[in-house]
Amino acid sequence: MKFTCQKSILQEGISTVQKAITGKSTLPILNGIHIKTNQNELILTGSDIDLSIETKIKSDIIEEGSIVIDAKIFGEIIRKLDNDTIHIDTIDNNSIEIVCNKSRFTLIHMNSEDFPELPNINENMIFSIPQNILKNMIRGTIFATAQDETRPILTGILFEIKDKNLNLVALDGYRLALKSENLDTDNIINAVIPGKTLSEVSKILEENEESVNITFTPNHILFSIGETKIISRLLEGEFIKYNSIIPEEYNLKIIAKRIVLLNSIERASLMGKDGNTNLIKFDIEDENMVITSNSQLGMVREELNIILQGEPLQIAFNSKYLIDVLKIMEEDEVVIELSSSVSPCIIKNKNTNNCTYLVLPVRLVNN
Amino acid sequence: MKFTCQKSILQEGISTVQKAITGKSTLPILNGIHIKTNQNELILTGSDIDLSIETKIKSDIIEEGSIVIDAKIFGEIIRKLDNDTIHIDTIDNNSIEIVCNKSRFTLIHMNSEDFPELPNINENMIFSIPQNILKNMIRGTIFATAQDETRPILTGILFEIKDKNLNLVALDGYRLALKSENLDTDNIINAVIPGKTLSEVSKILEENEESVNITFTPNHILFSIGETKIISRLLEGEFIKYNSIIPEEYNLKIIAKRIVLLNSIERASLMGKDGNTNLIKFDIEDENMVITSNSQLGMVREELNIILQGEPLQIAFNSKYLIDVLKIMEEDEVVIELSSSVSPCIIKNKNTNNCTYLVLPVRLVNN
Repeated sequence: MKFTCQKSILQEGISTVQKAITGKSTLPILNGIHIKTNQNELILTGSDIDLSIETKIKSDIIEEGSIVIDAKIFGEIIRKLDNDTIHIDTIDNNSIEIVCNKSRFTLIHMNSEDFPELPNINENMIFSIPQNILKNMIRGTIFATAQDETRPILTGILFEIKDKNLNLVALDGYRLALKSENLDTDNIINAVIPGKTLSEVSKILEENEESVNITFTPNHILFSIGETKIISRLLEGEFIKYNSIIPEEYNLKIIAKRIVLLNSIERASLMGKDGNTNLIKFDIEDENMVITSNSQLGMVREELNIILQGEPLQIAFNSKYLIDVLKIMEEDEVVIELSSSVSPCIIKNKNTNNCTYLVLPVRLVNN
Repeated sequence: MKFTCQKSILQEGISTVQKAITGKSTLPILNGIHIKTNQNELILTGSDIDLSIETKIKSDIIEEGSIVIDAKIFGEIIRKLDNDTIHIDTIDNNSIEIVCNKSRFTLIHMNSEDFPELPNINENMIFSIPQNILKNMIRGTIFATAQDETRPILTGILFEIKDKNLNLVALDGYRLALKSENLDTDNIINAVIPGKTLSEVSKILEENEESVNITFTPNHILFSIGETKIISRLLEGEFIKYNSIIPEEYNLKIIAKRIVLLNSIERASLMGKDGNTNLIKFDIEDENMVITSNSQLGMVREELNIILQGEPLQIAFNSKYLIDVLKIMEEDEVVIELSSSVSPCIIKNKNTNNCTYLVLPVRLVNN
């Protein structure tokens, strides 16, 4: 195998496929990048079996072939080379030679035949969505996935397509995040994608309106973003019927300025931090909400103006869950729907109906 | 005690004195900031005994007094408050009340009488130097201080004033860093300042030409920077006679472009990293220097143009020590003086005679 490639192009390609390489695999071959010539381009692939990323980059191919090369050291070498043309050539002793101006590296490579084959996916494109919208939907839900593996299905995000809508849903037993967008498709899909996959997909997605194409098979999802393909296995099992958790009715409704509320909660949470309970109490009355918290260090009282429709209420929360939601939301004003001090709290945008957040309250001993 | 203060001013003051507070002291009082009213200002002090920082900030004093307040929680609260006037007042139960707009905190305070007194230093100013120059001198030497406590004196930097020169010297047994500046004083000083102190001093020093005033006592050094005073104990013991280590003669001299040499060494070091030896070899001949390194992963060969005065030489180094020096130097070209493959290597600026770096070579088995 022999080719030349511009340093910046090769570096970007490596950086893309490295997102699938954990570097901690017990199989050495999975710590490598698979490089294969293909007419006037290179196909780079990284994989940890569950997640594989493949990207195509421009290259002058002088002699065809394929190798696997340790991703970490190869990435470091390419990154440190001059910003110029890089020449790569297989030489004796299972090695490649990397030459760029007056720098010359010899590096042992692995056998490309040992690299796992990617799942064969028939690219009947099922739907496509602008990159910035998908990126935003992932960002708006991924924080609510479960971090422990007690219930593996909750470490993923539900991709649900129905009624010409794409819904992304994450929940961890204490809170739920739902983002929705219209989608021009009659397909019906119900698949759970690992959170790790979507975290890497989100890094590759750009803030523009170009499309990402998404294909499903019974066991896999394929994202095609420009010259890059991301293939991930799906999580097995049934996702929780999230619709039955979200209450449709409420007894009181608050409208609040999002940043003012966020700042007040963040300050109130400083006192709760010490005992690691993050407990804050809301005292909602007329045009006024009082947030309090205390610990052995002292106490805090925050007051803010709200619009209240309904009866006054006292309710307590783990401040972390509210902070996560209010930080991720985008509108200036939020609507909070409550029913009782032990019922779920629903947070929505005031104007756009594209997200629903649910946070469970903390039941106080003296209630 | 009762006062008001602008949030941004109080926050900056806290941030300055927090640099002396490790937060890990077994004496709770040392995790606190001492706050004392003083006419129309507050004096804030943080201390870990070895290092104390005191700063004065503008404040409207309504009632005099002094308290000690936990630095971490106090700093977090002030940082999160609205950017407006903060009202602080001592109330019952050893507490203070912090009020800013609609935020109200009650926080337990400690007894200011338990706070250690700062060493009394007679501020006969011994010398003054522009902040940016001192900052640069610290930056140019601190990396060469010893990181382990085997020989405590080597964890400090020697401040030597003689012959109208200020010299800062650090060494750790493998390399030495010396920075010099002219100083208009007839004093003679020889004191070793803890590296930790200078690291914090360096963060407080600004990139401008305003003066920092420096006073010595037999056991302490005092830096006065604007409204801030930093007092540190000196390290006990005799510093190594560094002059006897720096060779005055050499057999060959190289002139090289600093960044080109740095990049070549950084690339060559990628191969040495795996075995953690960082070993790179120089092969110096005429207008050409070849740098090589190898490990079980492969090998690297870098070539660069140099100007050589003297005989060819082969010599090996720990790449880390050369990288540290070449990164910190500022001129485009460096001069390297060598005598043999087992003698120290001296690195200097080509044009300005304000620094001397020494790196010991690695003795190769086959030499």
